[in-house]
Amino acid sequence: MTRVLVWNEFRHEKHADHPASTIYPKGIHGAIAEGLQANDASFVVNTATLDDPEHGLTEDVLANTDVLIWWGHMAHHEVDDAVVARVKKHVVERGMGLIVLHSGHFSKIFKNLMGSTCDLKWREADDIERVWVIEPSHPIAAGVPEHFELPEEMYGERFDIPAPDTLVMISWFTGGEVFRSGCCYHRGNGKVFYFRPGHESYPTYFDETVRKVIANGVRWAAPNGLVRPTYGNFKALEGQQ
Amino acid sequence: MTRVLVWNEFRHEKHADHPASTIYPKGIHGAIAEGLQANDASFVVNTATLDDPEHGLTEDVLANTDVLIWWGHMAHHEVDDAVVARVKKHVVERGMGLIVLHSGHFSKIFKNLMGSTCDLKWREADDIERVWVIEPSHPIAAGVPEHFELPEEMYGERFDIPAPDTLVMISWFTGGEVFRSGCCYHRGNGKVFYFRPGHESYPTYFDETVRKVIANGVRWAAPNGLVRPTYGNFKALEGQQ
Amino acid sequence: MTRVLVWNEFRHEKHADHPASTIYPKGIHGAIAEGLQANDASFVVNTATLDDPEHGLTEDVLANTDVLIWWGHMAHHEVDDAVVARVKKHVVERGMGLIVLHSGHFSKIFKNLMGSTCDLKWREADDIERVWVIEPSHPIAAGVPEHFELPEEMYGERFDIPAPDTLVMISWFTGGEVFRSGCCYHRGNGKVFYFRPGHESYPTYFDETVRKVIANGVRWAAPNGLVRPTYGNFKALEGQQ
Amino acid sequence: MTRVLVWNEFRHEKHADHPASTIYPKGIHGAIAEGLQANDASFVVNTATLDDPEHGLTEDVLANTDVLIWWGHMAHHEVDDAVVARVKKHVVERGMGLIVLHSGHFSKIFKNLMGSTCDLKWREADDIERVWVIEPSHPIAAGVPEHFELPEEMYGERFDIPAPDTLVMISWFTGGEVFRSGCCYHRGNGKVFYFRPGHESYPTYFDETVRKVIANGVRWAAPNGLVRPTYGNFKALEGQQ
Repeated sequence: MTRVLVWNEFRHEKHADHPASTIYPKGIHGAIAEGLQANDASFVVNTATLDDPEHGLTEDVLANTDVLIWWGHMAHHEVDDAVVARVKKHVVERGMGLIVLHSGHFSKIFKNLMGSTCDLKWREADDIERVWVIEPSHPIAAGVPEHFELPEEMYGERFDIPAPDTLVMISWFTGGEVFRSGCCYHRGNGKVFYFRPGHESYPTYFDETVRKVIANGVRWAAPNGLVRPTYGNFKALEGQQ
Repeated sequence: MTRVLVWNEFRHEKHADHPASTIYPKGIHGAIAEGLQANDASFVVNTATLDDPEHGLTEDVLANTDVLIWWGHMAHHEVDDAVVARVKKHVVERGMGLIVLHSGHFSKIFKNLMGSTCDLKWREADDIERVWVIEPSHPIAAGVPEHFELPEEMYGERFDIPAPDTLVMISWFTGGEVFRSGCCYHRGNGKVFYFRPGHESYPTYFDETVRKVIANGVRWAAPNGLVRPTYGNFKALEGQQ
Repeated sequence: MTRVLVWNEFRHEKHADHPASTIYPKGIHGAIAEGLQANDASFVVNTATLDDPEHGLTEDVLANTDVLIWWGHMAHHEVDDAVVARVKKHVVERGMGLIVLHSGHFSKIFKNLMGSTCDLKWREADDIERVWVIEPSHPIAAGVPEHFELPEEMYGERFDIPAPDTLVMISWFTGGEVFRSGCCYHRGNGKVFYFRPGHESYPTYFDETVRKVIANGVRWAAPNGLVRPTYGNFKALEGQQ
Repeated sequence: MTRVLVWNEFRHEKHADHPASTIYPKGIHGAIAEGLQANDASFVVNTATLDDPEHGLTEDVLANTDVLIWWGHMAHHEVDDAVVARVKKHVVERGMGLIVLHSGHFSKIFKNLMGSTCDLKWREADDIERVWVIEPSHPIAAGVPEHFELPEEMYGERFDIPAPDTLVMISWFTGGEVFRSGCCYHRGNGKVFYFRPGHESYPTYFDETVRKVIANGVRWAAPNGLVRPTYGNFKALEGQQ
């Protein structure tokens, strides 16, 4: 059993004249949650959104989450700093997994865990994104074809992130750009996976391959068998000092 | 179900006056196989040794192996080059996992996969090895205490290997040395784990923690869900050229 | 010409009854600056300390610094957040190099750039630290013997840092510990080098090998020839869309 | 002073009806050597080719080489195994730098140092390659614009290499592919840089940016200040055992 919490800003979808309201009638979180459940019956999936009290990310909720999925875009600045600190603590200290999607690259929690600006190039146009698997034996690539295509917003390098511990996917875009689009990190006791696709104006989270990658990400990021290290003043090995 | 093949040179144990003959009455492979079975009932474990025909590593045997474990020391040069090439093909092309133990650092297959000399410092004395987990959220560290101790032969840096994709453990030795003792690599479609402990004069493969690490290694290295890439002449994406 | 700024908390040395006052009569920064100058006549070395106005890290000073060296210990919390943000901007955006020494692992700037807790084990006793070079061809190891010894405070793993882009050195301690003691990172446009030795109660910064490592670190971290990437809305390659 | 040896297969250029004979009247090695000399007057540049005695790679020549540049394509199999072993020894043991260009990905020396198949996708068509710098603070990116374009043969992922120690560049191709095109490795005491561009039918080695990258690669790969580790039986630190 893996307890997954899908967090979504949930703003675009509420504007009747935004494409997201039609594409994602149950919200982006609804589509992601549905995809997770369809991929793995052992996932227990819940959702939370920005406008919930404490953004739906209370201590109690987080303490019962194995992997948190994060989608945000236009309201990163509205996420409370105390909640960000709480989420970080759960990742870095308790070992909760974190999957950051698409425009979540600019979320407070991702920038905080990366230590860099997380800036990038972008273009809203009619690009096709072609995602290439470059590390086929990584668990996040299990069952994923060596390339798959999506109509998507363009994100281009330089993506200002630390070099991933494992780079699993690189995206190609029609207009001439590349992007490190599947990036794995260890941070503290937790694992972090950044996955690029998912602009709110495209039905990306209904795509079967995208859903498979996210489900793989959850299995990879879950803190199975973690033994937390201790810190501080430490006694020498007997007989050594 | 994961099909594991434990390969052992099986020479030291046959010399009645060598400590290995007493410590490992069923051979080092026997002790490793027993530990795997005790750790995970879903493993189907077989063994093979140097003096078997084709070293017990026929095409048919390898084709039915998910993860191969390798222990060798005094007879690396007796391993047939054709068999080494066959094992490599199964790792790099088919995606078979490979776990290389202790003195296997100097095996033909490990040197071939690493591309460097794989040389190191060593000392047979009365050292204690203290293994430290430095990447606790890695699956190979699942359930492993943050440090554990073994009476062992010393191996010291510089260990001439490529920097591991993930460095999971570092060993400390009484006499003043350190060693990268848990090293993960992707090679082609396969995964390779080098784990340091296991000198033939110590009962290392009866140690519960050592056995747990090897079992974790098998689960990590198994080629679950692998989609093999294609190579060669490739057609452009329709409409792009 | 490389413009180096050595920043020191400079508190221990001012207490007449603290060993640091005797060991470092010109401050830790004084000893480091002297060592840099002795190693490379092309370095232009300045110093700054916590109690200087704006900690000596004004916009103007930083803008004229190629590599900043950071030593702090007891007063990390006194460093102004606005100054930390300014230093980070110079590293990540302008590409200023940063060398963090010893107890600087817990400085605001280092934790901020790493994204993890940067916690560790420690012991003030009579340990010997033996530093091992594990990546001899890295420029920071140039001219450095494969191991060197120092009487030092113990720092032990788990060191809660992201896996370094390049791990150049690992330390052994008498009491049974290991530590990743020479760690290289790219962060944004800047390079960061963490180097472990340098407890205030030992004359570490007068050691010739330590001085050589720090000088090598400065040459490695200096932003020579950096072309800064651009970010934001980006036009497609002509003819591609 | 850095002593560079440019090695070229030098076959395509000798066929009067092959475009290479017109594009590279002095051979590919001639163009590369000229570019190096133009970039850095401190380089002492020599050349050698496949049809020279011992391929021009005698023990004496190699012993006087700091960085070897390798271009080969149609005659990889003609390179003598003993010469490959000699070159490898100079890289891994002596610390000679090695820069492998374009179709050199399939050379014996590169495959031997990587340990994987080094296979890839390719297409000879009318592609444009757009090379993106993704690690701008790396010395190989010094003075290199964040992207540059070349008419080139397509090479596409999956490129079957170990994950580079540092990935400096990723290429985009018109037809829908991406490629890790600037890859840095430590191997033994030596440094290896793989750089993708350079199909024999294009004037790639006259391009100013390509020439700058290769010159940067030489400076990065040169074995400055290398202290070679020792291996074998090792005595404990006095007082420790």
